[in-house]
Amino acid sequence: MSKNFRIDYQREERIGFQEVVFGASKTIDQLRGIIQDFQKNHKSALVTRLQKKKAEVLTSEFSPSFYDQTSKILLVGEFPKEVVEDEIAILSGGTSDQYLVDEIYYSLLFVGRKASRFHDVGVAGVHRLLENIEELRKYSVLIVVAGFEGALPTVVGGLLPQPIIAVPASVGYGVSKGGKTALKSMLASCANGITVVNIDNGYGAAMAAFRIIHGK
Amino acid sequence: MSKNFRIDYQREERIGFQEVVFGASKTIDQLRGIIQDFQKNHKSALVTRLQKKKAEVLTSEFSPSFYDQTSKILLVGEFPKEVVEDEIAILSGGTSDQYLVDEIYYSLLFVGRKASRFHDVGVAGVHRLLENIEELRKYSVLIVVAGFEGALPTVVGGLLPQPIIAVPASVGYGVSKGGKTALKSMLASCANGITVVNIDNGYGAAMAAFRIIHGK
Amino acid sequence: MSKNFRIDYQREERIGFQEVVFGASKTIDQLRGIIQDFQKNHKSALVTRLQKKKAEVLTSEFSPSFYDQTSKILLVGEFPKEVVEDEIAILSGGTSDQYLVDEIYYSLLFVGRKASRFHDVGVAGVHRLLENIEELRKYSVLIVVAGFEGALPTVVGGLLPQPIIAVPASVGYGVSKGGKTALKSMLASCANGITVVNIDNGYGAAMAAFRIIHGK
Amino acid sequence: MSKNFRIDYQREERIGFQEVVFGASKTIDQLRGIIQDFQKNHKSALVTRLQKKKAEVLTSEFSPSFYDQTSKILLVGEFPKEVVEDEIAILSGGTSDQYLVDEIYYSLLFVGRKASRFHDVGVAGVHRLLENIEELRKYSVLIVVAGFEGALPTVVGGLLPQPIIAVPASVGYGVSKGGKTALKSMLASCANGITVVNIDNGYGAAMAAFRIIHGK
Amino acid sequence: MSKNFRIDYQREERIGFQEVVFGASKTIDQLRGIIQDFQKNHKSALVTRLQKKKAEVLTSEFSPSFYDQTSKILLVGEFPKEVVEDEIAILSGGTSDQYLVDEIYYSLLFVGRKASRFHDVGVAGVHRLLENIEELRKYSVLIVVAGFEGALPTVVGGLLPQPIIAVPASVGYGVSKGGKTALKSMLASCANGITVVNIDNGYGAAMAAFRIIHGK
Amino acid sequence: MSKNFRIDYQREERIGFQEVVFGASKTIDQLRGIIQDFQKNHKSALVTRLQKKKAEVLTSEFSPSFYDQTSKILLVGEFPKEVVEDEIAILSGGTSDQYLVDEIYYSLLFVGRKASRFHDVGVAGVHRLLENIEELRKYSVLIVVAGFEGALPTVVGGLLPQPIIAVPASVGYGVSKGGKTALKSMLASCANGITVVNIDNGYGAAMAAFRIIHGK
Amino acid sequence: MSKNFRIDYQREERIGFQEVVFGASKTIDQLRGIIQDFQKNHKSALVTRLQKKKAEVLTSEFSPSFYDQTSKILLVGEFPKEVVEDEIAILSGGTSDQYLVDEIYYSLLFVGRKASRFHDVGVAGVHRLLENIEELRKYSVLIVVAGFEGALPTVVGGLLPQPIIAVPASVGYGVSKGGKTALKSMLASCANGITVVNIDNGYGAAMAAFRIIHGK
Amino acid sequence: MSKNFRIDYQREERIGFQEVVFGASKTIDQLRGIIQDFQKNHKSALVTRLQKKKAEVLTSEFSPSFYDQTSKILLVGEFPKEVVEDEIAILSGGTSDQYLVDEIYYSLLFVGRKASRFHDVGVAGVHRLLENIEELRKYSVLIVVAGFEGALPTVVGGLLPQPIIAVPASVGYGVSKGGKTALKSMLASCANGITVVNIDNGYGAAMAAFRIIHGK
Repeated sequence: MSKNFRIDYQREERIGFQEVVFGASKTIDQLRGIIQDFQKNHKSALVTRLQKKKAEVLTSEFSPSFYDQTSKILLVGEFPKEVVEDEIAILSGGTSDQYLVDEIYYSLLFVGRKASRFHDVGVAGVHRLLENIEELRKYSVLIVVAGFEGALPTVVGGLLPQPIIAVPASVGYGVSKGGKTALKSMLASCANGITVVNIDNGYGAAMAAFRIIHGK
Repeated sequence: MSKNFRIDYQREERIGFQEVVFGASKTIDQLRGIIQDFQKNHKSALVTRLQKKKAEVLTSEFSPSFYDQTSKILLVGEFPKEVVEDEIAILSGGTSDQYLVDEIYYSLLFVGRKASRFHDVGVAGVHRLLENIEELRKYSVLIVVAGFEGALPTVVGGLLPQPIIAVPASVGYGVSKGGKTALKSMLASCANGITVVNIDNGYGAAMAAFRIIHGK
Repeated sequence: MSKNFRIDYQREERIGFQEVVFGASKTIDQLRGIIQDFQKNHKSALVTRLQKKKAEVLTSEFSPSFYDQTSKILLVGEFPKEVVEDEIAILSGGTSDQYLVDEIYYSLLFVGRKASRFHDVGVAGVHRLLENIEELRKYSVLIVVAGFEGALPTVVGGLLPQPIIAVPASVGYGVSKGGKTALKSMLASCANGITVVNIDNGYGAAMAAFRIIHGK
Repeated sequence: MSKNFRIDYQREERIGFQEVVFGASKTIDQLRGIIQDFQKNHKSALVTRLQKKKAEVLTSEFSPSFYDQTSKILLVGEFPKEVVEDEIAILSGGTSDQYLVDEIYYSLLFVGRKASRFHDVGVAGVHRLLENIEELRKYSVLIVVAGFEGALPTVVGGLLPQPIIAVPASVGYGVSKGGKTALKSMLASCANGITVVNIDNGYGAAMAAFRIIHGK
Repeated sequence: MSKNFRIDYQREERIGFQEVVFGASKTIDQLRGIIQDFQKNHKSALVTRLQKKKAEVLTSEFSPSFYDQTSKILLVGEFPKEVVEDEIAILSGGTSDQYLVDEIYYSLLFVGRKASRFHDVGVAGVHRLLENIEELRKYSVLIVVAGFEGALPTVVGGLLPQPIIAVPASVGYGVSKGGKTALKSMLASCANGITVVNIDNGYGAAMAAFRIIHGK
Repeated sequence: MSKNFRIDYQREERIGFQEVVFGASKTIDQLRGIIQDFQKNHKSALVTRLQKKKAEVLTSEFSPSFYDQTSKILLVGEFPKEVVEDEIAILSGGTSDQYLVDEIYYSLLFVGRKASRFHDVGVAGVHRLLENIEELRKYSVLIVVAGFEGALPTVVGGLLPQPIIAVPASVGYGVSKGGKTALKSMLASCANGITVVNIDNGYGAAMAAFRIIHGK
Repeated sequence: MSKNFRIDYQREERIGFQEVVFGASKTIDQLRGIIQDFQKNHKSALVTRLQKKKAEVLTSEFSPSFYDQTSKILLVGEFPKEVVEDEIAILSGGTSDQYLVDEIYYSLLFVGRKASRFHDVGVAGVHRLLENIEELRKYSVLIVVAGFEGALPTVVGGLLPQPIIAVPASVGYGVSKGGKTALKSMLASCANGITVVNIDNGYGAAMAAFRIIHGK
Repeated sequence: MSKNFRIDYQREERIGFQEVVFGASKTIDQLRGIIQDFQKNHKSALVTRLQKKKAEVLTSEFSPSFYDQTSKILLVGEFPKEVVEDEIAILSGGTSDQYLVDEIYYSLLFVGRKASRFHDVGVAGVHRLLENIEELRKYSVLIVVAGFEGALPTVVGGLLPQPIIAVPASVGYGVSKGGKTALKSMLASCANGITVVNIDNGYGAAMAAFRIIHGK
């Protein structure tokens, strides 16, 4: 069968970062073909949301490659040697959100930005956040991850002046199952100027931060 | 036409507080008949969510009577002469929630409890809440009203040990229109031991507080 | 990798009960690290909603430990030696709700309260509830679990004066699948003063009861 | 303009009761034309959910006619002279449901059945229902109306053996606004053998009862 | 552990049919205990929605027993020797609904009614229904099963005068996944006097038919 | 203020029909400016969903103009003198859908197609549809309007081979309020090859028919 | 057991294409019986959405047979020898939609139409679509598949005049999980005259195109 | 009555812009009190979503004041004398979105930024957008407003590298009524790095842009 995809290699020139591959809904055969196409064009391939089993096959076939099981990120190629630090902070309320924090972290690393991670600054013990306020003030962009009721971006947004990208996590159960309550809570925030991405869209949040940083 | 309702006058004996009247969906004729029935039984009648136009007719017919336009509470009869103070605090994030704060306030007054109101302690400026923590520690029950993203009960619940009754307000727009986001956010709170009532159910929150206080 | 969580050990001092661990969305590695942290701080660790397979690994590694398969509660450490009885009653409509009744039971046991369980007092045979009314009158708090249409708290709330915490169960199918109908039914109850927690939030209901009992 | 409707006059022969007119979404001109068509065919016309203003115009034009403001039922023609009693009981939880009780009552009257109405037998004071059980046992069909949490059909269904048609009322607010919680609660009832009609569909409930009675 | 359930053995006397067991959410241990309790009380036990694996264990332990894999019905005991035929017809639109048709069939058999099944009379080829109209006219109650858009009860309801119980099936995908579109379509039917049960509630539909038949 | 819109006058050349104006959410000032712009470009202006009050102002200002109150269509300019007949049939279930039937009718007239209207061929009396089958077979495209349960397109789709465009009407109440049940029912139709447009989107259905006819 | 289905063999004569089999919810036994029935009537059987495991059994039993794993289409029999090309184009935004593109492709092949597939013309790189506009202009019908935000049909609809059938794909996550956002986006399209089928309903889209082509 | 609000005058110092007033749900009395409080603190007061009738009262009482009827923005005080231009562009698809474009415009003007407005660059005629690409490239932040299917941010996001803030408009009907489809479409965008605010939240979008600009 002939090739049934067409990578948008001009994207990086147009918008500053290249096309990546959404791994969850593609078969190994489809992914293999796409990665080979990237290689022919001398590009690294970043695959997001790649299930472990498919990753194991692909990392055994392609080298160099990197797979992080928590974030389900696969890189065929290498992260940039030189990275910029101290521009972006990722805040989260707890261990359950780590998968998303790390998807954001590796997505930014792929475009040459090394973010700082602030774990467990959740609102059920607001002193943990308050203790970090001065440290957080140094960053240019804040990415705030939260599941359940999604209140963290609101509290952060009332305390700090930077651009805030809120990322709802799909953790939770009952009314918060799937992340819709966190999403709506972030959208409805009484703290002004917060923006939001889709549930579990760590890659999107990373690129939103990149768009802000990149243009400066 | 014969009487098509039957007041549950034994309710106070069974559960500690009497039946009240949900005014929003009743006609003036229905309400007049019900209030007269209360009067024949030597009881005050509390009507909740009563639209202004219907209230004007009824307050002109019954005396003594009291109507508060913000909370839409009508009392035909009198509030108790002696009330207990300093047991219950009502917290809210802003002026838009006042209608609900006051429905709770008057509902508690009707059962002999004078609550304290803390306005504008919302999470977009969390210092206003933090300044009141020691004062709030004195109360036996905290009723927390919030609209939009409904984050206030979570922050309160992480700071204070009392029973917390969260009341979602229907204020808001877009995803928070009608109060469903605030409701779900409160139910999904990562602060443990918070309980919730229906959107705009100020009377229910008041009686939930009364059940706690009354049994002590 | 450095530690990516931070337990809120001051929580017990602030609000009367310590932080517990939501087990469902954490890996064994994450849980192991967290439990060790609790042990270093000389605290028992309570893990809720822990899947059986992960529990088997952890109970084989930590001692003393206790795991209840129905409620999915793991305790690393020991329940208090001395407990207070006859304060809290847990009512439910049937065997299908047992998982939730027992999550509430063990969560309360962890904070030194031994609750009484009333099984199968559901509304489809209301005589079973009516026969227990006098017995139920003795308790300070009633926790009422129900799935499907969630009508039990309403009937209880019309008969008894205590604080009532309604807990929707996710059992059911069709319109009641996932527990949303039970949740909404409880929130919309025509019996006044009932409060509600998230679907399947047995731990939250237990702590809501504890907040009431504790403050007396 | 030519006639743009066609009444199904064979319906009564096929299914036992004639076509009626849904008034809410029709203009006065449309209704006038339809009613005249019924008159030409020597039939009474029953119009449901007719707004008061439109009814006033039509009752001034057609005689004999009857309009009940609570139920919004218009009859152009006359109710049957001879009616059968004691077959159908309509139960409801309170005054707020009266509009629906009466829509059912008049719809049944139109097909020659005079139903008995039991007001205020709601579950928040379950003794009022229990006192009526023996009386209710005499009827062949029970139509049970409820808004808010819609628990009444469940309790009735656990106590009595007859066919039960549950009718959700759109009264309520917050999660019960529009009647969807009552509807789902009735569908999810743990009492078996209850059937349900659309929210506020009093006419449909009446015809469902008629189908049962008629075929005996 | 002591018994944590209580069968409602008076139910048959009160409402005409005995309590059955909802199998889907119970463990084998719970089911074994419940079935033994039925046996001690000299009753057959009907278990609905029982997964195949659990059924295999229980049928190997209890005799006589019957399990139908399509409908997931388990009977421990025997169906009545004498049954009444030609009272109830079950109509469905196709093979995909068979699981529900058969749950209704066996549930009715358990209470001594042998229903007739009309397969594949769906509306996409309406002639198949029209050919059966005279035959269908003989039955006292029609139970109509449909998934996808759920249009069958509407067409039947416009052609035949009997009581019609509509049962939405959870088959379908996209907007009809889970059966909610079929459910709502049946509730909104423009054919009057149709009643509806919960999605996949075959047992409930059977008992609704039984309530109608039984009282005659 | 400078002009804040820009009509897409090349649209007709690109896709065969010109841009029209969605009137519901525009002010009279906005509409006046837009219509004048059309006039300067020597084009008729078709405005859809225009409220009566705004139409009265505009028809008094522009001539020639035509406004149909039922369909809320305003034409500033004239319908084509020559029209093609007998290509498109519009079917509907009753008088309540007339507003939509007529929006489709006038939208087609604007592009030179005179459709035939079949009123009251609804499924609650399926014989009315069956009687028209041979007549309907002559048309090239069938547009089928239905509210409530939206079953009509399914029955039509099982009987006739033409392209079928289903249009859900927002008439109805309870679960069918706003037209979502009709929409989903049409999408889930078990009759194959039916396509659907948005609720109340009569203009869209007309243009979908035009795209089919036009290309022949 | 007697046959519990009835194939509608007159469908092809009535509407131009024969009945096919929805495979997802049928057992192997049910499918075997149905396929044998088709064979007895000298017809090929097309089964849609057939899971791989069931397909493996059936392809081993029936010959000739064809199964495509991506689209889950099974054909027992043979595709037509002669097919018409260049009438229908299928557009999609990427590899993740291929399952649906191919279901449409094989469904059309079954009725003698060989469609052309345009992969990866998605809107995130709109130049890929613009480059194909002249080529696309040659086709009589455009079927446009899209998941996530479903914007492709809108852009196509603004550029090309043909009938456009939009097919929402269930790929996506968070708010686009299950395809509902793509579906609603297509229905709400500001490009006029686009019609839509159910999520993942590739077969339906194919037959909608066939209805258009067939009648010419 | 004592003051029941407390303006957060430290907000500007903390996060760079001052508290504004949500006007829709406040009474004239509440607004008057709040505006006077701002005046006492020598601050201008910006009120968003203020209904015309309330605005007329307030503009007659306070001077200088400015009210824009389309955007429903009230300013008591004056816009900054000096403003920065050419940093922020606001794109929209049509006249129906103007209310939101202008709310963004005036909100930015209040913080000293004069944005450029691009009207009618919607995707149904994508050439209008393509013609403006080079001009748009000059701006630092793009705010993209869209209702109906909300596709515009996706197309922009695939063509331009800047930060993109998508704002769903509540215009539309049927599935797009209230703006939820536009919101979800924007969140699910296949163009990466787009962020979203609540439906109709023009002020929030403006402050999100300000957070980006301000920190540079």
